[in-house]
Amino acid sequence: MDARTEISSLGEFGLIDHLTRNIELRNASTILGVGDDAAVIDHFGKQTVLSTDLLIENIHFDLMYTPLRHLGYKSVVVNLSDIYAMNANPTQILVSLGFSNRFSVEAIDEFYEGIYAACDKYGVDLVGGDTSSSGKGFIISITAIGEVRPDKFVQRSTAGKGDLLCCSGDLGGAYLGLVFLEREKKIFLENPEIKPDLEDEKYVIGRMLRPEAAKEIIDFFEQEGIVPSSMMDISDGLSSEILHICKESELGCVIYEEKIPIAEETRKAAYKFELDPTACALSGGEDYELLFTVKQADYDKLVLNEKISVIGFMTAPEDGKKIITKGGNTFDITAQGWNAFTI
Amino acid sequence: MDARTEISSLGEFGLIDHLTRNIELRNASTILGVGDDAAVIDHFGKQTVLSTDLLIENIHFDLMYTPLRHLGYKSVVVNLSDIYAMNANPTQILVSLGFSNRFSVEAIDEFYEGIYAACDKYGVDLVGGDTSSSGKGFIISITAIGEVRPDKFVQRSTAGKGDLLCCSGDLGGAYLGLVFLEREKKIFLENPEIKPDLEDEKYVIGRMLRPEAAKEIIDFFEQEGIVPSSMMDISDGLSSEILHICKESELGCVIYEEKIPIAEETRKAAYKFELDPTACALSGGEDYELLFTVKQADYDKLVLNEKISVIGFMTAPEDGKKIITKGGNTFDITAQGWNAFTI
Repeated sequence: MDARTEISSLGEFGLIDHLTRNIELRNASTILGVGDDAAVIDHFGKQTVLSTDLLIENIHFDLMYTPLRHLGYKSVVVNLSDIYAMNANPTQILVSLGFSNRFSVEAIDEFYEGIYAACDKYGVDLVGGDTSSSGKGFIISITAIGEVRPDKFVQRSTAGKGDLLCCSGDLGGAYLGLVFLEREKKIFLENPEIKPDLEDEKYVIGRMLRPEAAKEIIDFFEQEGIVPSSMMDISDGLSSEILHICKESELGCVIYEEKIPIAEETRKAAYKFELDPTACALSGGEDYELLFTVKQADYDKLVLNEKISVIGFMTAPEDGKKIITKGGNTFDITAQGWNAFTI
Repeated sequence: MDARTEISSLGEFGLIDHLTRNIELRNASTILGVGDDAAVIDHFGKQTVLSTDLLIENIHFDLMYTPLRHLGYKSVVVNLSDIYAMNANPTQILVSLGFSNRFSVEAIDEFYEGIYAACDKYGVDLVGGDTSSSGKGFIISITAIGEVRPDKFVQRSTAGKGDLLCCSGDLGGAYLGLVFLEREKKIFLENPEIKPDLEDEKYVIGRMLRPEAAKEIIDFFEQEGIVPSSMMDISDGLSSEILHICKESELGCVIYEEKIPIAEETRKAAYKFELDPTACALSGGEDYELLFTVKQADYDKLVLNEKISVIGFMTAPEDGKKIITKGGNTFDITAQGWNAFTI
């Protein structure tokens, strides 16, 4: 990037025009997009699903190792993940940004390239937002809107006793990507001459910097006529999310350590950092996979999908929340999810 | 406020439970509110209207003279104003907050009291959001959702030549409230012994700190069967908004200085600060009144409402955007709206 265009040379309205000049609307339900006081959406006969996230520099992301394009992409994906977790399909997003004059128009363009790439990949329309200066740092607020057929949306509170507890994809990778990037950052700050070798940790870094939402799992449910009995996305770590489903559904559960899906690359990275891969899957965050329960009768359909792992089942509340280790020991599952207020 | 409860004593989930413990849902369209990955809304046969705003401490508000309760109230009102500006009725909001550990649970409670008071006044449901720590300062992102009968929503781009240009309420007050509060802040910083006398400027301070959205104007339109030909809310100053409607509708306009509604209290405050009241109305922001155009045939209905002023009319684009002063002189209207990037 050679040129640097100051934001002030465009002004706020000029910047919005610049950023939204190539928007193409994909959804028939998008009646009116960017450019008025509000967007208008028509969801006749479907229910609207809404989710929002606020991402703040140095709390949720570190621009020292996060390319702006990846950050834009991930900011959208994180929100879409919440919509898929309702068994709904995302259709529109609103994006609000606050940034200081340390950012050039080219930098904001890079961020929006990521936003648009995610819109493209997941078929959603950017329909509005707000752009503002911030005294310091980069602030991102995204609201995602989706649609779902009435009574098809899936809550956290509706798991049944005996239901199979399942998750999509593999877990723990994003956390190890973060551990690796934080270590490289520290080394770089101590000695800027040392170039990090990212090649070996490509998989876990990709899981951290450029996650994907579990759209194909929702499509698979639709295709196979599966409606999970409860569902949520895994953003704070498996154990924290399992405890949410148990609490909201007023049930206990048993999970098996050996059934928790962990990629070979994640396992290797964990050993390199002398971490337990299972602990990374249970307590690491930001995997953006789905955690869900299904009736046992759906088991035969589930096994068709190699991206779905059955990791345990729901029990009576008095049976507690248990993990059975590979060695055959039983432990209580404890929340180790990220808690932004205790960092 | 005597007690101070640290946020960290509740944790993020505890804080969300605490803040949302008294939520009552008011709208039949609210199927599922706070507590899951996303909210669910049913707008069968109506269109969904969406708007979002990002408010950042020391850019959009100054906590030195803004009580947190008022800030909560205003944050909601600002968003609802955008929904009313579409001729729609707001039904739900999502609230995301970022704040540092300088804020106690009691402080956040005060902010939410204002949020809930606005929800109550305007009949909207709080259905979701995100809560996060911020390194520094207070960050508010609110998304408002509304509904409108198909084809009843009003854009900025659809004014017609000859249409009457109107606004609601009175203008310039919020700007003078800001001028007054900024002056008192400066005096206080120089000499903390001097207590400000706010009584004389109560009206303009109220316009600044606790604005209301123009719900009753939208209700009046509904009752009288009026559909404006174009509409937007006045957040950046009358002249800036008039230029938006002219640009989007590809028209010119004429407005009359003597027709611009300015409250007596605002006029007095302007003279005290040696400012021109008309300039305050044209260029001051944050009044959150409505600017709209109607067909001339609707004039007889409009005059029934004393909160509506006809300030001019739309002309051909080649006639320009003009203001005729009380003295009979004609000037071009220029944008003096706030531009956050040039502050």
